[in-house]
Amino acid sequence: MDSRQILEAFDEVAKRRGWSRLHTPKNLSMALSVEVAELMRHLQWRSDEEILQLFASAEGCTAIAELADIQMYLLKLADTLGVDMEQALAEKITENRRRCAAAEDPGEEGPGGPSGRS
Amino acid sequence: MDSRQILEAFDEVAKRRGWSRLHTPKNLSMALSVEVAELMRHLQWRSDEEILQLFASAEGCTAIAELADIQMYLLKLADTLGVDMEQALAEKITENRRRCAAAEDPGEEGPGGPSGRS
Amino acid sequence: MDSRQILEAFDEVAKRRGWSRLHTPKNLSMALSVEVAELMRHLQWRSDEEILQLFASAEGCTAIAELADIQMYLLKLADTLGVDMEQALAEKITENRRRCAAAEDPGEEGPGGPSGRS
Amino acid sequence: MDSRQILEAFDEVAKRRGWSRLHTPKNLSMALSVEVAELMRHLQWRSDEEILQLFASAEGCTAIAELADIQMYLLKLADTLGVDMEQALAEKITENRRRCAAAEDPGEEGPGGPSGRS
Repeated sequence: MDSRQILEAFDEVAKRRGWSRLHTPKNLSMALSVEVAELMRHLQWRSDEEILQLFASAEGCTAIAELADIQMYLLKLADTLGVDMEQALAEKITENRRRCAAAEDPGEEGPGGPSGRS
Repeated sequence: MDSRQILEAFDEVAKRRGWSRLHTPKNLSMALSVEVAELMRHLQWRSDEEILQLFASAEGCTAIAELADIQMYLLKLADTLGVDMEQALAEKITENRRRCAAAEDPGEEGPGGPSGRS
Repeated sequence: MDSRQILEAFDEVAKRRGWSRLHTPKNLSMALSVEVAELMRHLQWRSDEEILQLFASAEGCTAIAELADIQMYLLKLADTLGVDMEQALAEKITENRRRCAAAEDPGEEGPGGPSGRS
Repeated sequence: MDSRQILEAFDEVAKRRGWSRLHTPKNLSMALSVEVAELMRHLQWRSDEEILQLFASAEGCTAIAELADIQMYLLKLADTLGVDMEQALAEKITENRRRCAAAEDPGEEGPGGPSGRS
């Protein structure tokens, strides 16, 4: 299932339910943020071990569905904004590799750390 | 570029920078939330029209890169949790279509609205 | 410094900078979300021990300022929505105590857990 | 009701329910983020006018309770981090006024805009 098929399925449901006019950039970014928090709600009071157990169990299905929701809203938002995700990803990966190489060259950047990365 | 390739690029940089041990489920969910907010920062004070103008302009590239970051952290989080995103998406789409059909059948559900959907 | 004084200081700066018209409910909720993420950015890759060390050190001041930003946007959002925070807090505390008592009465509610609380 | 009383009420319920050990800095920051999203869920598909109508109506009480939850988790997180919110707010307000004055002095800073503020 590629991005185009996911978007078509998303839009078909939105159209039939009369929700398409609500899918503005601002609203979609809020929905994306809400879906991430719905996932986080399953993780917030659990340790990393308990989280892995949850996702390996039958009760994990609700949390797994949140991951799918995040993916759908992300693709819909990118589409609404006219962003080519393939290209955005390719450029970001190139940029991350460039920064990584620069960090390994002591003349270019300090040792840094994950706190400072974007 | 498929999910596997994106993950390999992500992991390669993480490994070289010594960040892999930080990529636990909890930390990754926080990073995903932070990246969504970094995107939202570009949208919060703009109208929908101004947002579309931003993304159509050269200055939009920083905001576009946030979309790529969100995608990468989402894939990494799903991978860490052992979630098959292809399957999760297929199941969620099936579920959304089922709910949509139920909503169209007046005997099943009220007219509803987007506020109540998940 | 009480809520009224915090709001007056916030509004004074907003007015002088010409930002007041941007302070709509939707925009303010996005700003609140962005500020929470800016705080989370200081925590995401650190352990709980490292977080406590950060806040006890001089470098913690940027992170502390995020807490103040969250408080200001929360009060501004509540004010814009016409919500009396004093009353909202009093009602929520009463409700939490009632639920707690119900949870302690085995006839009312199961053992429950933090995952299910709101 | 001051901060100390809110914290005591929060801690009393947490202690009786056995949740205190879960209230680490990281978990509390996630809970804060989740509560902000629960508020946002009431706003995401509504216009600013519809949001104001919601909060003026009887149905707004659930959304109002989210604002109280955000306030409680913010105070609990600050307390856990050893942050004096009174002082943090006083310092942030002083800083915002200083930046505002600098922005009004054309020799100090450009006209700027809300996108660039923190």
